[in-house]
Amino acid sequence: LQSKLPTLGNSIFSQMSLLAAEHRAINLSQGFPDFPSNPQLIEFLAESARDGLNQYAPMPGVLVLRQQISILVQRCYQRVLCPEQQITVTSGATEALFVAIQALVRPGDEVIVFDPAYDSYQPAVELAGGFTVHVPLQPPLYQVDWVQLEKQISKKTRLIIVNSPHNPTGAVFSHQDWLSLQTLVLKHRLYCISDEVYEHLVFDGEAQLSANQYPDLAERTVVVSSFGKTLHVTGWKLGYAVASVELTSEFRKIHQYVTFSSFTPAQYAIARLLCEQPDDVTGLAAFYQQKRDQFRQALAASAWSLLPCRGSYFQLADYSAFSDLDDVAFCHWLTREHKVAAIPLSVFYRQSPSQRIIRFCFAKEPQTLAMATEILCRLS
Amino acid sequence: LQSKLPTLGNSIFSQMSLLAAEHRAINLSQGFPDFPSNPQLIEFLAESARDGLNQYAPMPGVLVLRQQISILVQRCYQRVLCPEQQITVTSGATEALFVAIQALVRPGDEVIVFDPAYDSYQPAVELAGGFTVHVPLQPPLYQVDWVQLEKQISKKTRLIIVNSPHNPTGAVFSHQDWLSLQTLVLKHRLYCISDEVYEHLVFDGEAQLSANQYPDLAERTVVVSSFGKTLHVTGWKLGYAVASVELTSEFRKIHQYVTFSSFTPAQYAIARLLCEQPDDVTGLAAFYQQKRDQFRQALAASAWSLLPCRGSYFQLADYSAFSDLDDVAFCHWLTREHKVAAIPLSVFYRQSPSQRIIRFCFAKEPQTLAMATEILCRLS
Ligand SMILES: CSCCC(=O)C(=O)O
Ligand SMILES: CSCCC(=O)C(=O)O
Repeated sequence: LQSKLPTLGNSIFSQMSLLAAEHRAINLSQGFPDFPSNPQLIEFLAESARDGLNQYAPMPGVLVLRQQISILVQRCYQRVLCPEQQITVTSGATEALFVAIQALVRPGDEVIVFDPAYDSYQPAVELAGGFTVHVPLQPPLYQVDWVQLEKQISKKTRLIIVNSPHNPTGAVFSHQDWLSLQTLVLKHRLYCISDEVYEHLVFDGEAQLSANQYPDLAERTVVVSSFGKTLHVTGWKLGYAVASVELTSEFRKIHQYVTFSSFTPAQYAIARLLCEQPDDVTGLAAFYQQKRDQFRQALAASAWSLLPCRGSYFQLADYSAFSDLDDVAFCHWLTREHKVAAIPLSVFYRQSPSQRIIRFCFAKEPQTLAMATEILCRLS
Repeated sequence: LQSKLPTLGNSIFSQMSLLAAEHRAINLSQGFPDFPSNPQLIEFLAESARDGLNQYAPMPGVLVLRQQISILVQRCYQRVLCPEQQITVTSGATEALFVAIQALVRPGDEVIVFDPAYDSYQPAVELAGGFTVHVPLQPPLYQVDWVQLEKQISKKTRLIIVNSPHNPTGAVFSHQDWLSLQTLVLKHRLYCISDEVYEHLVFDGEAQLSANQYPDLAERTVVVSSFGKTLHVTGWKLGYAVASVELTSEFRKIHQYVTFSSFTPAQYAIARLLCEQPDDVTGLAAFYQQKRDQFRQALAASAWSLLPCRGSYFQLADYSAFSDLDDVAFCHWLTREHKVAAIPLSVFYRQSPSQRIIRFCFAKEPQTLAMATEILCRLS
């Protein structure tokens, strides 16, 4: 059997979570919280299922949830959406990204992605017959050089995939970045996928900006978000895509044959939570900033060199001061010998520079972070 | 924006369910039960969520569920599977079908499907760059003419998609059908996707057969099934794919970028139900046969002409004795004027013969079936 994705193995997140489990390591690799979500949400789930809401949801998602999403988007970004025609609920942001890519990319198209980037973009583009063109982000700030980026745009360029707050680097787009993106998208008549799954996790009082706030950009963009991240239930696999009426129509043509619809009782439960406790998401930035600060402060006096983290729940750390191992070997060693699991940064790259940096997820209880950082301090 | 699927609109199932809701019609169109599932299953769901099992499941599904699936497959079909390497849990059978098609079909490949066939196969094949070749099934039995089918196999043929029990016709493969399929698959070195979502719904004491029982066939087949159908929770969107180690490895490469994993608490809940009440699925055939018989008997003396139904929860009915409307117009009229919704058979065809047949779903409470058949009798 000839492979459709010959160079791919098991995803790094599966690999490292498995290794962490085998070695009973503290798992700061795959991004997910180790604390419970809102107990109300769990009760709403149980009630929806007991109320018999267990058959197919409408293909674009249950309407009450799409209405709550439109209220949320309007509150956060002042964009007025039509829940019927511009919002589609998906089986996680992963499905939304995959479907948006299939809807937009034709065989031979080029797609601009950053280097490093989240690992699912490239295989999805290749399955659609397209090619990714990787635009490097430079440490320590991992900002986009828009002049350089424009030089990579060719006649074949169809789509640009952006991601702010950025996984794995924690970089966040400024207002100027969004304007530059908008200018390029309009000038070259590109489409855009804006992966905003960490949208509410922007720290230090910086503005939480979104493609939703730039109307000309938004018109050509699929904005993707994730309730898994926002409500601490990554295993619920519920996300959504926001787009123009025309883009949404193409998006749904694919979505209906990829999963058709998503887990019904959870859609009602989330709609109810957003309706009854709309302020739940507002406190997220402060909640996660505390975790970031705990993690950073605990390592401040160590030989680890921490890169800036302006958003997301990931922290990059440079260990070159005390180890010569490459980052993959280092992560395996760290998991096996010291019982802390992290993700090597090189796996997010097409062309990884030679560097010794790994990614920690700090979406963890204070005591988890305390135990992990104590180990990390000791070994440095 | 140039469409990737230009000829496609909203799926017929969404359309008819929407129309049924608008007109407060009894909905016998889209296939889903109107009765509750096992209350134990709902409680297990609530408990899993309360127990904090709300983060990412492993990419191939939680192991306890895969173990229960392997026990079920062994019990029903005497096939011994490795849960680790041959079973993948998916976000509904729809995702399993989509992923299997993406894993197997390369640009330019031909894929044999039946005419009529379930509506998701063709768009999924086209997104992979392949082409469907449609082999007609003839009423009233809708059996496969394997000699005719072999004539459609070319050098480009890569895959055949079979579906027994068959949606929309209710036809069921005999042992001889499976042997013929196996012979062709081996002779022409094809791959096979066996859509067995109605596997437990085979009536009149006929044997419930599966690709899983034909080892040489199974080696080249992805078998797809659905807990939504088996446990009366179509909105839970949980299915699975069974395949050889090699095919599973390719399947998972795609699955991990399409949805990555599925709703965690429901996976644990289903595993627990299958473990504690393994006989729950055994009674399914008798349970649904009663519904089929109620529906058929109620219409026996009417002008409706019922086609044979040997499996699935769908019943085809010919209304040519009392109406000249085409089947799409007839279904709209039936929904609007008489408050019973059904699916026109022509939508399942590439090349629909001129006939006046529609599909009813009988996965309904006795009183729902009684009300619907009373209306249907009156108008004929
Ligand atoms: C879908 S598993 C990956 C989770 C995640 O987004 C990450 O760890 O980067
Ligand atoms: C995914 S909605 C379609 C349900 C179904 O299988 C049918 O009605 O045929």
